Amino acid sequence: MNTAALYHRPESEFCYLYKDGSVHVRLRTAKDDIQSVKLIYADPYKWASSGVGNADNTNSTNYWVYETKKMKKLLSDETSDFYQTEVTVPTKRMDYVFVVEDQKGKKFVYTDKGVLPYKKSLLKSKYAAFRLPYFHQVDAYHAPSWVRDMVWYQIFPERFANGDTSNDPEKVKDWSDQAPDRQDFYGGDLQGVLDHLDHLVDLGVNGIYFCPIFKSPTNHKYDTEDYLEIDPHFGTKELFKTLVEEAHKRGLKVMLDAVFNHIGDTSPFWQDVLQNQEHSKYAAWFHVNSWPVVGDEDPDNFENSTNLTFDTFAFTPHMPKLNTANPEVQAHLLHIAEYWIREFDIDAWRLDVADEVDHQFWKKFRTTCDAAKKDFYILGEVWHSSQPWLNGDEFSAVMNYAYTGAISDFFVKRKISMPQMISAINDQLMLYRKETSTVMFNCLDSHDTPRFLTECKEDKNLFKQVEAFTYLNPGSPCIYYGDEVGLTGGMDPDCRRPMIWDEDKQDKDLYAFFKDLVAFRKENAELLADGTMDWCVVSESNGVLQLERKLGKKRLIGTFNTGKKAVDGDLKGVLLSNRAKIDGKHVTIKPKGFVISRG
Amino acid sequence: MNTAALYHRPESEFCYLYKDGSVHVRLRTAKDDIQSVKLIYADPYKWASSGVGNADNTNSTNYWVYETKKMKKLLSDETSDFYQTEVTVPTKRMDYVFVVEDQKGKKFVYTDKGVLPYKKSLLKSKYAAFRLPYFHQVDAYHAPSWVRDMVWYQIFPERFANGDTSNDPEKVKDWSDQAPDRQDFYGGDLQGVLDHLDHLVDLGVNGIYFCPIFKSPTNHKYDTEDYLEIDPHFGTKELFKTLVEEAHKRGLKVMLDAVFNHIGDTSPFWQDVLQNQEHSKYAAWFHVNSWPVVGDEDPDNFENSTNLTFDTFAFTPHMPKLNTANPEVQAHLLHIAEYWIREFDIDAWRLDVADEVDHQFWKKFRTTCDAAKKDFYILGEVWHSSQPWLNGDEFSAVMNYAYTGAISDFFVKRKISMPQMISAINDQLMLYRKETSTVMFNCLDSHDTPRFLTECKEDKNLFKQVEAFTYLNPGSPCIYYGDEVGLTGGMDPDCRRPMIWDEDKQDKDLYAFFKDLVAFRKENAELLADGTMDWCVVSESNGVLQLERKLGKKRLIGTFNTGKKAVDGDLKGVLLSNRAKIDGKHVTIKPKGFVISRG
Repeated sequence: MNTAALYHRPESEFCYLYKDGSVHVRLRTAKDDIQSVKLIYADPYKWASSGVGNADNTNSTNYWVYETKKMKKLLSDETSDFYQTEVTVPTKRMDYVFVVEDQKGKKFVYTDKGVLPYKKSLLKSKYAAFRLPYFHQVDAYHAPSWVRDMVWYQIFPERFANGDTSNDPEKVKDWSDQAPDRQDFYGGDLQGVLDHLDHLVDLGVNGIYFCPIFKSPTNHKYDTEDYLEIDPHFGTKELFKTLVEEAHKRGLKVMLDAVFNHIGDTSPFWQDVLQNQEHSKYAAWFHVNSWPVVGDEDPDNFENSTNLTFDTFAFTPHMPKLNTANPEVQAHLLHIAEYWIREFDIDAWRLDVADEVDHQFWKKFRTTCDAAKKDFYILGEVWHSSQPWLNGDEFSAVMNYAYTGAISDFFVKRKISMPQMISAINDQLMLYRKETSTVMFNCLDSHDTPRFLTECKEDKNLFKQVEAFTYLNPGSPCIYYGDEVGLTGGMDPDCRRPMIWDEDKQDKDLYAFFKDLVAFRKENAELLADGTMDWCVVSESNGVLQLERKLGKKRLIGTFNTGKKAVDGDLKGVLLSNRAKIDGKHVTIKPKGFVISRG
Repeated sequence: MNTAALYHRPESEFCYLYKDGSVHVRLRTAKDDIQSVKLIYADPYKWASSGVGNADNTNSTNYWVYETKKMKKLLSDETSDFYQTEVTVPTKRMDYVFVVEDQKGKKFVYTDKGVLPYKKSLLKSKYAAFRLPYFHQVDAYHAPSWVRDMVWYQIFPERFANGDTSNDPEKVKDWSDQAPDRQDFYGGDLQGVLDHLDHLVDLGVNGIYFCPIFKSPTNHKYDTEDYLEIDPHFGTKELFKTLVEEAHKRGLKVMLDAVFNHIGDTSPFWQDVLQNQEHSKYAAWFHVNSWPVVGDEDPDNFENSTNLTFDTFAFTPHMPKLNTANPEVQAHLLHIAEYWIREFDIDAWRLDVADEVDHQFWKKFRTTCDAAKKDFYILGEVWHSSQPWLNGDEFSAVMNYAYTGAISDFFVKRKISMPQMISAINDQLMLYRKETSTVMFNCLDSHDTPRFLTECKEDKNLFKQVEAFTYLNPGSPCIYYGDEVGLTGGMDPDCRRPMIWDEDKQDKDLYAFFKDLVAFRKENAELLADGTMDWCVVSESNGVLQLERKLGKKRLIGTFNTGKKAVDGDLKGVLLSNRAKIDGKHVTIKPKGFVISRG
């Protein structure tokens, strides 16, 4: 057995409280190395024979009264298998070890003190057990239940719709000009969103993620000047309140974007520091490494200042980093967090550059939001492995670029093979507790990436295939404004083109496709969140990929032709398809086509 | 290469802030599988050629400006090698991957998205790097610096000394009766401790760990009746204040024992629940599973009640479990935590059954203690792997039974081999950040275990050998009261015999040995905390074990003869020894003997 590959970590995604007092336990082993894994578990204090003793009782006349449960191989990546099981212990305490049998029938006990050759006495004496000391609900990860039903819609407010020309910035570009530059303004605003809410309702989405709407000099507004004011070019607080109310009336949740890692250099706090230097009452609000502090000196190279004496986002002097360990900064930011929830009834915060802010602050942020509104959703922008933020006391989820990136790397970019994509997806699922994966934010594109249709080189069939595949996975999908009508664009700023409202220019076929897909996702939300993942067909030779999701008696099968020739087979109860010929049970799928069916 | 065995976990003991802005990075590999490991690292935003871009810039005209550092094989266990290095990044942000080369010269890149065949382009494009997003001191683990200099002395107050017979319980046993039963009282008290402070000063220890001193009906007082009162049989608050002052005057730190997992069933809170049931204002202070609640019904089987309708410590109805998720309970317990610090100036809390209390509570507890006193030490009772509590925001350390248990399992019980002990020790060191290991509480015995001299079957040479070995390891040793004069006793209650004050009955030789050992530990505190661990000789054939500790130019070598025949060799600058003949450089060590030397 490859004993060096065994890995388990107590009180992590490898062992956690799930629902109704049940516990999920996972074990990583080397791939195809193991014949069976059994979980040996029970209350730590449950000794028999000469009576119940204490946890460290190894008296030979006593023995530990343990239960045994076979673990199931749940998912695999390229090097590892992940075994999992679900158990309960009525007394809410659990000690456990693993009995692992290799392909040759040789057995080992994997304990808190390493891997030992199997002996029953190790179990009876409960030698070096792992422990989940007590099932504390307050320490568990809990996702707001509404999120699993969501299909989000991301709006970059400056580019969605101009509903009120009276609040336009000076020199707005013509809305039909599809070549936005970095500093351009088009005049999009909140009235524009309000005017088009019924577009979202018609599309079927049930939540809006707004890029920043607070006062800031730029079009993207990720350099906040005042977190307590709506940008005047976007509208007023009154208007925003109306917008949230109207959205709620239509069953749409509202998520705002909080940029707490850094502030805009036009903010009065930073301006005070520039003016008064170390004597500023805000001097300790930032990470100043030496005085004096000088702002941007090279306007031609404004994102590449390497000689700054203060910390910034990346190397951008316009975005001085906030010192979130400072209690005054904390009080200010937590007030903001609470203010927009209590006064405007928002449902979620999306947190920009969330990984670069300290954990102690996010724990306070989480407590503040939870106190202000029940079932509040907190979404962090983290592009890499995110276990440190997803243990229940910080974020609900992260922007799942690592997951959707693997999908794109196979289907579109062909940088990885089909088995590598599956490995990456499975690996991502095994990085987190099950419930976390159900509320992840699965965007294929955003204001920080090229448009996904552009990534697909405007191949709409490929685009549809990948969207359909993504919607079949756990996690809430998000439509980046305009994707539904065929909006294109490369990397920022090109991915921020004005929304297409001219019906003649909208892609009606794509729109109909998205309506069907969104409806499908909402109808099957529970199954798509909680159902098993089974990769039924993974064929590199003909490019067929088949994924089954199953929950109780309900199931969904997605069949995707990623190859170069048409493929055929039998599928029952087709729900959605593209480039597929359906003749009774018999289905033929052309390249870049797909079918989602019941059986 | 055994790629399945590679393991790294960002923001854990595998990657953490150390001192002065440096970062420790660790990698686990299969044992003896690797020729070399290099860490590739730099600021995530540091791109060159076409300028500094963003973290996800993979434009081919840009490349990531990374540094390379060879990692060192630090320690090994039976299946794994642990590589480590220390790096700094001036901008306080770091992306990193590992380049791992196997014994055949084949290279791989271990990334946040798994293990890939080596290609330089993976580094230049910074493909799927692990990330330490920002070096936040507020998220780092910080140990109080004084703890590394400590040798603790544990006092079980009812059995240390009776300094005031006027406060004795009824029917105390004679102090000379060395057969304590579970319910016996002897009359030990705080005045007794005050009277004997000079004994501790003479011994050289610099901190006292008191088992519980709060009001409780039992001799052990782990079933607290009132956390805000000193038990009247132990003395008064005034007396305790004097005791802390006198201890501090003598350079002795004071640690109290807080039992917050459960309360005694005689406490007014629980009595109110028994009387008023679900109408009690304390009903929600406990974990009641169904009403009515009935206390112990079977006095003959008081530690084995399996039909209780409320949660307890183990199966002991006398110890109802506190609901630490209840804000009223939190307020009460945090008030207690703060009260004894602010009013009595204690230096540390030891937390009983600490693992079974929720993490959210301990985080608040930590904040409360830190606010009340600078450099406060929090020691949790956890017998198993303790990473979940040792990340900086809960405990400073745990009672290191897992570490000292391995020592005893080899030297004394011979349940494991010498290499297995080393494996276990190295494994324990790799479970935690380096600084954590320096402040661990390394007790070989306590009120919860047999006396260590008894474990050694009263073989004083073996006892001395193991004590000397333990003192040579990182972590603060603790002397359980009486060990220094040869007190013996089996499992609880026998390990709680009255202290031997009759000088004729004290083991003077052992006492002198402990004085030397404690002095040695204190003189070499920095080296023993921070020095490298090098297992120079590990010989199962002749039983010689040699451990070198080194820091800068200073070093210490411990040589232990665990075999059956005398061994000899050259050692310079002997500091401490037992059963050793020293003839200039030439040293002969008899079985169970040891030498600690400078070279």
